Amino acid sequence: MMGRGSHILPPKAVAIEKETPENERPSTFLRESDGDNHSLSSVRGRFEKMIRDAQDCVCQAIEAADGGGKFKEDVWSRPGGGGGISRVLQDGAVWEKAGVNVSVVYGVMPPEAYRAAKPASSTDSSSDLNHKPGPVPFFAAGISSVLHPKNPFAPTLHFNYRYFETDAPKDTPGAPRQWWFGGGTDLTPAYIFEEDVKHFHSVQKSACDKFDPSFYPRFKKWCDDYFYIKHRGERRGLGGIFFDDLNDYDQEMLLSFATECANSVVPAYLPIIEKRKDVPFTDRHKAWQQLRRGRYVEFNLVYDRGTTFGLKTGGRIESILVSLPLTARWEYDHQPEEGSEEWKLLDACINPKEWI
Amino acid sequence: MMGRGSHILPPKAVAIEKETPENERPSTFLRESDGDNHSLSSVRGRFEKMIRDAQDCVCQAIEAADGGGKFKEDVWSRPGGGGGISRVLQDGAVWEKAGVNVSVVYGVMPPEAYRAAKPASSTDSSSDLNHKPGPVPFFAAGISSVLHPKNPFAPTLHFNYRYFETDAPKDTPGAPRQWWFGGGTDLTPAYIFEEDVKHFHSVQKSACDKFDPSFYPRFKKWCDDYFYIKHRGERRGLGGIFFDDLNDYDQEMLLSFATECANSVVPAYLPIIEKRKDVPFTDRHKAWQQLRRGRYVEFNLVYDRGTTFGLKTGGRIESILVSLPLTARWEYDHQPEEGSEEWKLLDACINPKEWI
Repeated sequence: MMGRGSHILPPKAVAIEKETPENERPSTFLRESDGDNHSLSSVRGRFEKMIRDAQDCVCQAIEAADGGGKFKEDVWSRPGGGGGISRVLQDGAVWEKAGVNVSVVYGVMPPEAYRAAKPASSTDSSSDLNHKPGPVPFFAAGISSVLHPKNPFAPTLHFNYRYFETDAPKDTPGAPRQWWFGGGTDLTPAYIFEEDVKHFHSVQKSACDKFDPSFYPRFKKWCDDYFYIKHRGERRGLGGIFFDDLNDYDQEMLLSFATECANSVVPAYLPIIEKRKDVPFTDRHKAWQQLRRGRYVEFNLVYDRGTTFGLKTGGRIESILVSLPLTARWEYDHQPEEGSEEWKLLDACINPKEWI
Repeated sequence: MMGRGSHILPPKAVAIEKETPENERPSTFLRESDGDNHSLSSVRGRFEKMIRDAQDCVCQAIEAADGGGKFKEDVWSRPGGGGGISRVLQDGAVWEKAGVNVSVVYGVMPPEAYRAAKPASSTDSSSDLNHKPGPVPFFAAGISSVLHPKNPFAPTLHFNYRYFETDAPKDTPGAPRQWWFGGGTDLTPAYIFEEDVKHFHSVQKSACDKFDPSFYPRFKKWCDDYFYIKHRGERRGLGGIFFDDLNDYDQEMLLSFATECANSVVPAYLPIIEKRKDVPFTDRHKAWQQLRRGRYVEFNLVYDRGTTFGLKTGGRIESILVSLPLTARWEYDHQPEEGSEEWKLLDACINPKEWI
């Protein structure tokens, strides 16, 4: 069963502790009480390892391709458990802002939200009206990254992979934990190079096809639907894949799938950057890129679940808003000339295309 | 009675028609069925005249002070009544973006929202549970303006004055219409010149004091509370006055008060601009202004009622988002040096001060 459950983490209902800066990366952000997590027998532990490996791998590739900028690292933890590592490369040779964050959160959500989010097929005591369940502790871990290049012909990339789990209910021995996977990788160019977009989508499709032939078409459409700037009637970019609240497959399979997706980021993105990072451009190209960055800001601040949730619940603000571009622009009533390269990009954001 | 009723216009519950561009400004945007509106005997008619006069007056003063840029005007209407005039000056000599809009909206809100928004003291048939009232037609008119100068020592100004009225209930002959006034004027500098901020607040206080000695202290605090960027723990600027859902005074008095406030915009703001528009500045000053503009974007897209309401209900997007600056900037984890001029501004945004 799968549901679009933005309600699983209702604003205001969840508040998290203030974070504390750390001088060193701990080997794990999991609570010691999570038992066997250090031995990586749990999905929590293996997911944390996966996202931290992915963070290392992506940051290394970005630094190498940038050839100038270095990531600055901030490590932080929360007294009750959990924490994160934020890495940001700012004002590099290729990227003006590149953020790659991992975080682990322990929180508590109200029982109503838990009931709403749970698969409809699993009925247990919490659906009994005479039984009033308490707040439900949850665990969430994820990697989240936005990479904004300087050159207007080099696209922005975003990816995010996350795992969510509720604690086993104390009053129902043996009852299973609920768990979900979510994530996606999507491309936001200011100008379309069809071969780039085809390459990007092909890599996503290959990752998907290793697991289920229905994944790519389904998650491609989900991505087009999710990154929709409703008040503009346009998407923020040219999509990729997106899925959320996914638990209707084998848990091991979904963990492998998320791992495959995270490992596909570098081969999907860096070849495009290598081709476009030094293409000469004019002020007009730069201004258009900046207008599209404005749309990026609009999507993230108005619609993006992770951002709006983070802002409302007291997450680490600088880590959440590192997704915003270094600079953005809003011109009144800007309309690209019909048939122009700018118009073609806008058209593809309004009318999503099949790229492969 | 007064209530903080953001719920009076619940998102999704109100949808408005698509606007149509017009070639000429009509003498009024009111419906002909509004009867005597043209003769200016109604508050609706007089409020529309007031905001249109204020728009002319402010635009004239801005163009004169800019000495280069000219306002571009867009007029639009809706088939069922209402419409607006958007005026935008972009890339002027002094202002990089200055928008001054008036609009008149006819809409319908669900009865639950109306009950929640009404003064608690007025009980009528709609509070009778056996009586199920229908949707409540409403009228809203307002002027809204954001003026973003180029020079980082010249502050941004925002003002907005609005009038809201529900139709008289058809099933209760003689029952009064409900009405409210709202609005405010506030200043957002990137650097503090104490004499400028004192001058600005003094003009607001003078306008308030003509009507009620409690207005300035109350509306000054309301402004500090309203323009709060919760996730940052700071205000977007140095405040001014703000009030909303105000109907606990004589209606004529509040109409005069809103008029006085609108007429105070030019004397409160333009002397500051004249003093600061040509002050020499460095890249560091400009970068700080751009970071503060980023905060402006954060407030408007995440918290501002008018903006978030407009985006959700299908208002004219370009008119709504003309409030965003031409350009803005987000640096990861930027912290001004303690004691610096940038730090002083930030401190005043975190800890609101009494300026007069």
